[in-house]
Amino acid sequence: MVYKKQHYEDLGLGAKASSGRIRSLNKDGSFNVKKKGLPLFQRIHFYHALVSMSWFHFLLLILSAYLVVNLLFACLYFWIGVENLTGIDGSTDLDKYMEAFFFSSQTITTLGYGRTAPISFPASTVAAVESMIGLLAFALATGLLYGRFSKPSAKIRYSNSAVMAPYQGISGFMFRVLNPYSNQLLEVEVTVTLSMRKKDSDLRDFHQLDLERNKVVFLPSIWTVVHPINETSPLYNLTEESLLEKEAEFIVMMRAFDESFSQTVYSRSSYKASEIKWGYKFTYIIEQEEEGISLDVSRIDETEKAR
Amino acid sequence: MVYKKQHYEDLGLGAKASSGRIRSLNKDGSFNVKKKGLPLFQRIHFYHALVSMSWFHFLLLILSAYLVVNLLFACLYFWIGVENLTGIDGSTDLDKYMEAFFFSSQTITTLGYGRTAPISFPASTVAAVESMIGLLAFALATGLLYGRFSKPSAKIRYSNSAVMAPYQGISGFMFRVLNPYSNQLLEVEVTVTLSMRKKDSDLRDFHQLDLERNKVVFLPSIWTVVHPINETSPLYNLTEESLLEKEAEFIVMMRAFDESFSQTVYSRSSYKASEIKWGYKFTYIIEQEEEGISLDVSRIDETEKAR
Amino acid sequence: MVYKKQHYEDLGLGAKASSGRIRSLNKDGSFNVKKKGLPLFQRIHFYHALVSMSWFHFLLLILSAYLVVNLLFACLYFWIGVENLTGIDGSTDLDKYMEAFFFSSQTITTLGYGRTAPISFPASTVAAVESMIGLLAFALATGLLYGRFSKPSAKIRYSNSAVMAPYQGISGFMFRVLNPYSNQLLEVEVTVTLSMRKKDSDLRDFHQLDLERNKVVFLPSIWTVVHPINETSPLYNLTEESLLEKEAEFIVMMRAFDESFSQTVYSRSSYKASEIKWGYKFTYIIEQEEEGISLDVSRIDETEKAR
Amino acid sequence: MVYKKQHYEDLGLGAKASSGRIRSLNKDGSFNVKKKGLPLFQRIHFYHALVSMSWFHFLLLILSAYLVVNLLFACLYFWIGVENLTGIDGSTDLDKYMEAFFFSSQTITTLGYGRTAPISFPASTVAAVESMIGLLAFALATGLLYGRFSKPSAKIRYSNSAVMAPYQGISGFMFRVLNPYSNQLLEVEVTVTLSMRKKDSDLRDFHQLDLERNKVVFLPSIWTVVHPINETSPLYNLTEESLLEKEAEFIVMMRAFDESFSQTVYSRSSYKASEIKWGYKFTYIIEQEEEGISLDVSRIDETEKAR
Repeated sequence: MVYKKQHYEDLGLGAKASSGRIRSLNKDGSFNVKKKGLPLFQRIHFYHALVSMSWFHFLLLILSAYLVVNLLFACLYFWIGVENLTGIDGSTDLDKYMEAFFFSSQTITTLGYGRTAPISFPASTVAAVESMIGLLAFALATGLLYGRFSKPSAKIRYSNSAVMAPYQGISGFMFRVLNPYSNQLLEVEVTVTLSMRKKDSDLRDFHQLDLERNKVVFLPSIWTVVHPINETSPLYNLTEESLLEKEAEFIVMMRAFDESFSQTVYSRSSYKASEIKWGYKFTYIIEQEEEGISLDVSRIDETEKAR
Repeated sequence: MVYKKQHYEDLGLGAKASSGRIRSLNKDGSFNVKKKGLPLFQRIHFYHALVSMSWFHFLLLILSAYLVVNLLFACLYFWIGVENLTGIDGSTDLDKYMEAFFFSSQTITTLGYGRTAPISFPASTVAAVESMIGLLAFALATGLLYGRFSKPSAKIRYSNSAVMAPYQGISGFMFRVLNPYSNQLLEVEVTVTLSMRKKDSDLRDFHQLDLERNKVVFLPSIWTVVHPINETSPLYNLTEESLLEKEAEFIVMMRAFDESFSQTVYSRSSYKASEIKWGYKFTYIIEQEEEGISLDVSRIDETEKAR
Repeated sequence: MVYKKQHYEDLGLGAKASSGRIRSLNKDGSFNVKKKGLPLFQRIHFYHALVSMSWFHFLLLILSAYLVVNLLFACLYFWIGVENLTGIDGSTDLDKYMEAFFFSSQTITTLGYGRTAPISFPASTVAAVESMIGLLAFALATGLLYGRFSKPSAKIRYSNSAVMAPYQGISGFMFRVLNPYSNQLLEVEVTVTLSMRKKDSDLRDFHQLDLERNKVVFLPSIWTVVHPINETSPLYNLTEESLLEKEAEFIVMMRAFDESFSQTVYSRSSYKASEIKWGYKFTYIIEQEEEGISLDVSRIDETEKAR
Repeated sequence: MVYKKQHYEDLGLGAKASSGRIRSLNKDGSFNVKKKGLPLFQRIHFYHALVSMSWFHFLLLILSAYLVVNLLFACLYFWIGVENLTGIDGSTDLDKYMEAFFFSSQTITTLGYGRTAPISFPASTVAAVESMIGLLAFALATGLLYGRFSKPSAKIRYSNSAVMAPYQGISGFMFRVLNPYSNQLLEVEVTVTLSMRKKDSDLRDFHQLDLERNKVVFLPSIWTVVHPINETSPLYNLTEESLLEKEAEFIVMMRAFDESFSQTVYSRSSYKASEIKWGYKFTYIIEQEEEGISLDVSRIDETEKAR
C-alpha cells in the first residue's frame, strides 16, 4: 500500500483555518503561538530570558540587583553593629547605615579601600562570604553581558514584498534577501513552506516549495530566491484571488554560518498572499564600479512592472 | 553474495534479552549501562562531573573549597608568624589564627582592605602567590558557574504514553512532543529505534523505524511523531500481546538547534510495550484564538478512544 | 516543462561583465562588493568590528577608553570636591585633579589601595557606581581580548598559481593547498565555482566544478585539488586565450573542522585566468625520511614543465 | 570518457612506500608528517600552543610570566624611586626592591592592600597602567585555563588489535571501541581508510572501506566496527602474508557529539597489518545484571579463537 507523506496535525500551526488577517509567523520571526498550562517559572528559562531581554531592562536589572544586594548586606552589618567596622564616623543611624552600605559595595566588588574594614569575627565572616558571592555574582552578570554582546543576531534583510514574475518562460514566486552588514554569511540555505487552507475545509495544509536554488556558498550581495511555478508546484494554475481566498502564507527560514561569530545563525520571515505583487519584478540594483560592484541596500524593496 | 545490514552485537545494549521490566534507556535519557574495570579517576572527567552535578552540590563544593583553602593559607601565615602581618591584635592564638584566616580570604578574593597587610618577605611572598592562585581558581569556579548557567538542557517534553491509532487507512505508532519553553527549537530531527526479543531466542534485535516525517523546520507548538505500520514495518501484524511478550522498547532520540543558546541540543526518551495505548488517539489540544493559536502544555498526555 | 537549474541574477556578483583586471573575490577572501544606502551605525555590528580590527587598533582603543573614562570620573570627583576624598594633598588644582584621576583608576580596576578613599555620600556613591561599571566594562574588554585571541583564523595556504596539467589521459585544472600549522584540520571540503563572461554578452555565468575529490578526512600534509576537464566540464575545449578573453575566475571556498579550536573554519581564495600556468604541473615535494615523511611548506608554489 | 575517482598524490601521506615499521598515523592520533621551510613563529599558533601544552608547562609558564612581569615593574618603580611609594621601610636596596616587587604584585592582581601606595605622578601612572595590564593579562591566562579545562578530549578507547573473524558466512575485518567515561557520545560516525603498497611499485594507494554500519545514534557501551570482506572489498582474497607484504595500515577516524561539552569531537587511531589477529574474534563482555547491563571496560582487548 502506498500513502503520501504529509503533515499530521499540520505542524501544530493551527490546522483550523484562521481568519485571513492572522499570520502564523510574524515578520520578526516569532510565532503566533501562546503556550499555557504551565506555571511561569517552568515556562521560562532564566538564561534565555536574560539573554533575550532588551539592553535597557538588562542593565536596569543588574543595577537594581547591585543596589538591593548591597542594601541587604548593609542591614546585616548594621545588625551585627557598625562598631565592628573601622572608620565608621557617622553621627546618625542613617549615616552609619550608609557607611555600611558603601562598605558593602567596596566588599562585593572586591574594591576594598580599607578605610572601612571589619575588625570582629562576625563582621569579617560576613565580608569574607560577601566578597566570594560578589566574585560569583559578577561572573554571572559579566558572562551574560558578554554573551549578549557577542550573540549573533538575525542579520538578513528581506524584501518587504514578494513578486510573481516571469521566469524562464513560466512564472515564479520570488523574494530577495541581503546581508546589510560587512561580515560574511557562508553556506546560506533557505527553506520556503507554503501554508494554505484546504478546499471546502477549515483545515490548512503545508507544502515545502522547490526552489531554483536552495543554497548559496556565500552571500556577498543580494540573492533572489525563486520558486518556479511549474506543473509540480502547489501554486500551479492558482490566481491572485485564489491565493487570497486560501489565505496563503509563505514561511521562510534561512540558515547560514556567520564567519565573524563562528556560529550557525537562523533567520525567519513570512509573506502573506496580500504581500505578493503580481506582474512585478525586482529592479536590478547592482552597479558596476571602477574597483568592483556596489549595492544600494536601501533599494532592496524596489520593483518594476514586468514586461 | 548479498547480506543484510544489521547490528553486530546489537549496539552493546544487552543482546541477551533481559526480564521484561528492565528498560535499556531510562525515561530521563540515561542508559542502564554500568561501566566497570576502571579506577574512578580514569572513568570521571572533572569538567563533566562539575557541570553535571546538582546546583546544591556545586555551590556546596565551591563554598567548601573556599573554606578549606583559606584555612590552609591561614595555617601557613600562622606558621610564618602573625607578627609578619600588620593589624593583628588578637590576644589568643585562636584569635590570631582567625585574623590570619580573614587576611587570607581578603587576599584570595583580591579584596585587600589593607588593615591587615604582609610586612616581611615570607608573608609577602605567600600573599603574592595566594592572590595569583585566587585569580586562577576563581576563574575556574566562575567559568563553571557560567557554563552551568548557560548550558542548554534537554527541553523537550514527551507524552507519557504512545498510542496505536488509525492513520491513513492503516494503523500508526504515535507519540507527541513539545517544547514548553518560549525559546525556539529549529531543524528538529527524530530517530526511533525499536528493540525486540528475537523469536525463540534470548537475543534482541534493533530496527530503525520509518517515520511519516523525521524532521520539522521548527517546533512552535506540538508535533505528533508517526510511524505508519505498513508491510515494511517490523510491527506489521504484531498485536499488543506479542509486543509485550517480545519486550519491545521504542528508543527515541531528538536533535535540534536551540536558538537562544546557539547550540545543537539532544534529547532522549523511550516507550516500553506497556506504555502504549492501543486504540486510543491523542486529543487535539490546539485552540484558535483572536490573535493566533494557543496550546495548553499540560494537556500533552490527553488521549481519547479512537473511533 | 523542463528547465535547467541556474543562477538568477548570478549570485549578485556582478552579472554585467567587469573589465578583465577586476576580480570578484580578492586573494585574501574578501569580496569586491561595496554596500551603500545604509547609515554607518546600521551597517556595522560592534562585536564584529571589535573582533576584526587590528591588534594595534584594538589595544589603542582599550587604552584610550580607559584614559577617557578615568578623565571623566576624575572631573566628577573634582566637581563634587576633592575634600570628599581622603589623602588628597596636592597643592594646585591640577595636582588635585590628577589625584582624583588616579583615585578613579584605582576604583575602576577595583584596585582600591585606600590611601585615597571616599568619605562623603556623593563621593562614595560615585565610587560604588564606578567600581561596578569597571567590572562590567573590563568584562567586555577582556572577553573581546580573549575572543580575538582564541578566534580560529583562516589557516590554509593556497598555491599562488593554478596549473592546467595532464591528468589521467585528459587534462585537469589543479591547485594545491596545505595547512602550514601544527594543528589538525579535519573533514576538509572544497567548492570551486567558475565565473566566466557569456559569449557575445556583458553578463557572466557561474558553474560549480566537479572535482576528482571534494572532501578529505584529514589534511596532514598537502592536497592537490583537481577538476578533470572531461566532456561535462565548462572548460572542455577552451584554450588559454579563450579563458583570458572570457575573464574566467575560479572562486575557491574551503571548509574544515579545526581540532584545536573545536570549530568549523572557512577559507576563500580565487584564481584569475592570468594566474593559471598551462602545461605545468606541481613539483612533488614530499620527502620520505627515517621516521615518517617531511614536507617543505615553502615549496608549495613550485611547478615544473609537464612532460 | 570514464575515469575512476582516486586520490591524486595519495593525500600527501607518503605515496612512496615507506619501510614496513613506519606508520602514517600514530596510535595517539598524530600524523608522522614533519613540516619544514617556515620560521617557527609562522608555524605556531599561540592559542593552539597554549591550549595543547601539558598542564605542568602551562602552569609553569603562568607562574614564570607572573614572576618576570613583577620583576620588571619592580625595576620600574625602583628606577622612579621608592620614595614615591608609601610604606617602604626597607633599609637596603635589595629590601626596597623587594618591597617594590610586592607592591607590583599587589597592583597587578588588583589586590591593593594600600600599605604601600603610590604618591607621585610617575608612580601613580605606572600603577594605573599596571593594574589595567593585570586585568587584561589575567583575563588571557584565566581564559586559557578555563578553555583547557573545558576542552573536550578524545575519549574513545580502541581495542589494541583488530581481528579477522567469521562474519555472516564470509569474513570481516573488525575492531571495537568504547567510551570509558560516563558522559554520552551521540551520533558516532566512523571512517576506515586502508592504505596499501601497490603491486610491483613503491607507491601506496588508499581505499575507504565499506562498513556494516558506519554510524550509531549513541554509544552507551561497546561497538564492534565491521568491514565485511566481500567481492567489492580491497581485502578480498588477501592473506595475512600479503597484507604484511603490502604494509597495510587501517586508518580510523571517529566523529561524535559529546553531550557534556556540547561539542563535536574527533578521535583517530590506526592498525598496522601486524596488529591484526587472524582467526580470532572478540570476547562477548557484556553482562546482564538485575538492573540493566554491565560492561568491564578493561576487557576490551580480549579475543578468543574463532570456531
